[in-house]
Amino acid sequence: MKNTIFILKEGTPKYKQIYEQFKSFIERGDILPDNPLPSIRQLADSLQVSRNTTLMAYEQLVAEGYIRGEGRKGYFVNELEPVLFQNTVIPPHKKHKETVTPVQIDFRAGSVDQTNFPLEIWRRISNKVLTLRESFRYGEPFGEVCLREQIAAYLFQSRGVKTEPDAIIIGSSTQQMLIHLGQILKDEFTGIIIEDPGYDGAMEAFRFHRFTIETLPVYETGANFSKLEKLRSRLIYVTPSHQSPLGVSMSIQQRQLLIHWAKNKNGFIIEDDYDSEFRYTQQPFPALASIDSTRVIYLGNFSKSFLPGIRLSYMVLPQLVLNRYKNQFLHFESTSSLLSQLTMAKFMEEGEWNRHIKRMRLVYKRKMQCLVSELKEHFKQSTSIIGEQSGLYVLVKVHLNRSEEWLIERASIYGVKVYPTSIYFIKNHPGEAIIKLGFSNLTCDEIQRGVKLLKEAWGC
Amino acid sequence: MKNTIFILKEGTPKYKQIYEQFKSFIERGDILPDNPLPSIRQLADSLQVSRNTTLMAYEQLVAEGYIRGEGRKGYFVNELEPVLFQNTVIPPHKKHKETVTPVQIDFRAGSVDQTNFPLEIWRRISNKVLTLRESFRYGEPFGEVCLREQIAAYLFQSRGVKTEPDAIIIGSSTQQMLIHLGQILKDEFTGIIIEDPGYDGAMEAFRFHRFTIETLPVYETGANFSKLEKLRSRLIYVTPSHQSPLGVSMSIQQRQLLIHWAKNKNGFIIEDDYDSEFRYTQQPFPALASIDSTRVIYLGNFSKSFLPGIRLSYMVLPQLVLNRYKNQFLHFESTSSLLSQLTMAKFMEEGEWNRHIKRMRLVYKRKMQCLVSELKEHFKQSTSIIGEQSGLYVLVKVHLNRSEEWLIERASIYGVKVYPTSIYFIKNHPGEAIIKLGFSNLTCDEIQRGVKLLKEAWGC
Repeated sequence: MKNTIFILKEGTPKYKQIYEQFKSFIERGDILPDNPLPSIRQLADSLQVSRNTTLMAYEQLVAEGYIRGEGRKGYFVNELEPVLFQNTVIPPHKKHKETVTPVQIDFRAGSVDQTNFPLEIWRRISNKVLTLRESFRYGEPFGEVCLREQIAAYLFQSRGVKTEPDAIIIGSSTQQMLIHLGQILKDEFTGIIIEDPGYDGAMEAFRFHRFTIETLPVYETGANFSKLEKLRSRLIYVTPSHQSPLGVSMSIQQRQLLIHWAKNKNGFIIEDDYDSEFRYTQQPFPALASIDSTRVIYLGNFSKSFLPGIRLSYMVLPQLVLNRYKNQFLHFESTSSLLSQLTMAKFMEEGEWNRHIKRMRLVYKRKMQCLVSELKEHFKQSTSIIGEQSGLYVLVKVHLNRSEEWLIERASIYGVKVYPTSIYFIKNHPGEAIIKLGFSNLTCDEIQRGVKLLKEAWGC
Repeated sequence: MKNTIFILKEGTPKYKQIYEQFKSFIERGDILPDNPLPSIRQLADSLQVSRNTTLMAYEQLVAEGYIRGEGRKGYFVNELEPVLFQNTVIPPHKKHKETVTPVQIDFRAGSVDQTNFPLEIWRRISNKVLTLRESFRYGEPFGEVCLREQIAAYLFQSRGVKTEPDAIIIGSSTQQMLIHLGQILKDEFTGIIIEDPGYDGAMEAFRFHRFTIETLPVYETGANFSKLEKLRSRLIYVTPSHQSPLGVSMSIQQRQLLIHWAKNKNGFIIEDDYDSEFRYTQQPFPALASIDSTRVIYLGNFSKSFLPGIRLSYMVLPQLVLNRYKNQFLHFESTSSLLSQLTMAKFMEEGEWNRHIKRMRLVYKRKMQCLVSELKEHFKQSTSIIGEQSGLYVLVKVHLNRSEEWLIERASIYGVKVYPTSIYFIKNHPGEAIIKLGFSNLTCDEIQRGVKLLKEAWGC
């Protein structure tokens, strides 16, 4: 394959562009028969797209006979009938239609339920906010006081976290807050411990500041804390309520051990409590920050529990960190919408937030039950379900001796979009493929159809 | 003065808390008569409040006789009549009322006009956006395509900047974008040149990455470009359309010189075109990015022209920087609200944006004329006005041999809030005090009253 350049445009699906580009390379003879294509992973990395995207492009090329997969060896160009490609420039309107099955069911974990969104109430409040004089100015650098007051009250009531509004900082996303945090911690702490597997977005934020990264292995049964003493960092990022992505909760003994460790080391724990609202089988465990607030930096957000697109997050800082934070960021404008902050504050003040969370817990519990029972019924012994007690997705370990890529690819042929988990693992991958299925914006009917299609796709 | 600790709470005005605290120190004898207080500047820095805040607190203490100002020597504690303070704990309901004049006219530059805000149209569109399925997911990391398309079209039409939507990155504020930019530039560029005086928020963002900072002196007549060759950095941050804060525009010769410099040095120009929409006397000069797009990073935002609290900004990156940017930030979530992005895209698509800008240009032009004619009428030779051709504020050089602090303090006693400019200067301050007067959210009547009060306050 020559040094070919891909230019991916916005607007058209990327996999389609990759597919078209390869098709024209092959048709023009830029890539000759029996030559290998870049691997799914190489191509995804070099084009900065997901592996799922390159996989979909290759799958389409396979389906149309341009290339063939040879198992672990990769993909190779097929010999083409020359007559078919005499006219390489086909007028656009004569081009044959896309034959990739359109996505029917998308098990995406990043959306929220639309049907139960409190549309009218939110509209009423945000329409009102637009008439206030205070909506026409710049916001407070650390977030609006009225929202911080509401969050402080909510955290005390729901997570046992005692805090002053003054110790709360409003941000626009967990990653943005981690970048700011990293800035004030990086001089004292050169390294950080993260969970393996763990939230990839957090790792990226720590890489932003070039922290040395150490990993704490986590399993379905929980983290292996005996490893902690062997690590050098005094800073750790964890997801204690609902480990991301394995779903396990930290026991109270583990929580205490972790706090003891941080105190001993003069370190800090960054507790990301990203979706603690949705626990279906038990009461939520207390937040680390409720046990000891001096060594815990607590992060929360409205993305899972309300709306990801609203871009509202917050953190509670221990005094030591708070002073440094305010000193560093006093002259920085807030990154989160003033209008959204004022609307959310009023929404919480009116009690609508608590009502919304209660309602959504039931809605998501029903969906979770539906997904789990469908999976158990259709897959029986061929899959194990991980993390059904809480959150807005489950992981499915597939005992079919198939790769993650194969499972995603096969699903996509059947019109079902499922998600990889390998991106969350650093060096602790168990070997067997694990697929992520989100359900928040699917109906029970869609979940049922999706699982049935998956069964067909995976042939089990 | 002993080692006293101030704890400033949210909710109550800070100057009031500082005032109360000092009062109780003095009453309790923690600070003895004739002892000096920290300077306005020292106290502001250590408490992380504005100098205006500490000034207001001291002014109140002076007014009530607790302390006295001794010109350049600073503030000193007065001898108190012991009998007055036998009972240091006064029941709250018996405390005498605040005597500081409340703010009647606030010449703040960071607000926008509320009366002419297209409330109904914005509501209609944002209410519609809330019903779309796409509003319930996470947004695109580099911003929504629909908004980037609208911005590309707008930039071409209004600023002559030719760009693909793909080269546009949506962010939540200029500072947030500068932090991201700094991350991908800091390995190649260790230093940056900024304007002196210049936008303090940009300087803070460059300090975030510990860039070495060099300054280019700017005067009312423009920047001194002959200094450029003596500086070592190959990266420069400028505000060519409307220099912040002096208001002068860069001539086409200077623009070409700057681009030539960047090309020669293999450097980049960061062009912050923050309020180019509001130019009253001439057509706007072309953006640097319209002359040469390979060496110019163009920044724009919706804060001045629409609403600061919406937190929507954007930048146009040259190819070299774009690739690095996408590589670095592919795995970072957008910090700007998806809902605001979708609403703004539709607002622009419907032509409402252009209508809004046209209307606001007239509204602000009228307000600017009103402010300038009032200042000329009342102050005659005692002030010079800087920057009346464009933007949402003017600077007023006050020829009264008074300090900036004195002018702000005196104004506040008369219920007028005016703003300092010393925060924008690094080492190029002309000596004479310069006051900043914003007018965007004041009516002509309020502007008239404000100027009259200023005349009384400053005694000229």
